[in-house]
Amino acid sequence: MDTMGRHVIAELWECNLDILNDMERLEKTFVNAALKAGAEVREVAFHKFAPFGVSGVVIISESHLTIHSFPEHGYASIDVYTCGDIIDPHVAVQFIEDELEAKTSEKIEVPRGMGAVQIQNIKAQ
Amino acid sequence: MDTMGRHVIAELWECNLDILNDMERLEKTFVNAALKAGAEVREVAFHKFAPFGVSGVVIISESHLTIHSFPEHGYASIDVYTCGDIIDPHVAVQFIEDELEAKTSEKIEVPRGMGAVQIQNIKAQ
Repeated sequence: MDTMGRHVIAELWECNLDILNDMERLEKTFVNAALKAGAEVREVAFHKFAPFGVSGVVIISESHLTIHSFPEHGYASIDVYTCGDIIDPHVAVQFIEDELEAKTSEKIEVPRGMGAVQIQNIKAQ
Repeated sequence: MDTMGRHVIAELWECNLDILNDMERLEKTFVNAALKAGAEVREVAFHKFAPFGVSGVVIISESHLTIHSFPEHGYASIDVYTCGDIIDPHVAVQFIEDELEAKTSEKIEVPRGMGAVQIQNIKAQ
């Protein structure tokens, strides 16, 4: 398998607070985000913290999606990393952003497995 | 919990090929890397691909560590993301780098949960 990958780091703010604290819903959202992007889901692990917050990961054949939510701040820290050039990680990120009802977001894309680490582009809304 | 976090992206090259394909060993290495940095391990999920490669994640109370290994290229794609300012993600990254016997590496650190996404520093070896 080629080492080339695309890693999107997304900072989502002003999300729906209830959704950010709903582990089952977040788990479904992340699996669906992976599937929507055309990825193959391999492992799913989510964890709920007391009193607030959820951390979770979906390992896909093409790398991973992760979330760390901070309901008390309306913030979700998202990573979507996809290997190869078939799957577009931004499809998954946009799906997650919509599902979490984020009002503001910032994203950067980091190319992986291509030698020197450089930030490819910055997208802000 | 404060949203502030430090996310180290590490590209490890010229690693030990056998170690990169040994899922059990990588799982132990990543759990130990988390513990060595003083993190609290919450979930562990690893997956072995045929014929080569391992993907895995350790969810810690302070965020996550992930690996995607490409033994056929001697390459491991590593993320260590720690929330708060007590744990130093570079401690875990250095441990992993040593355990995988990486001869060359590149790292960037991305501050998370602090508003605008900026690359804080670039370290190359």
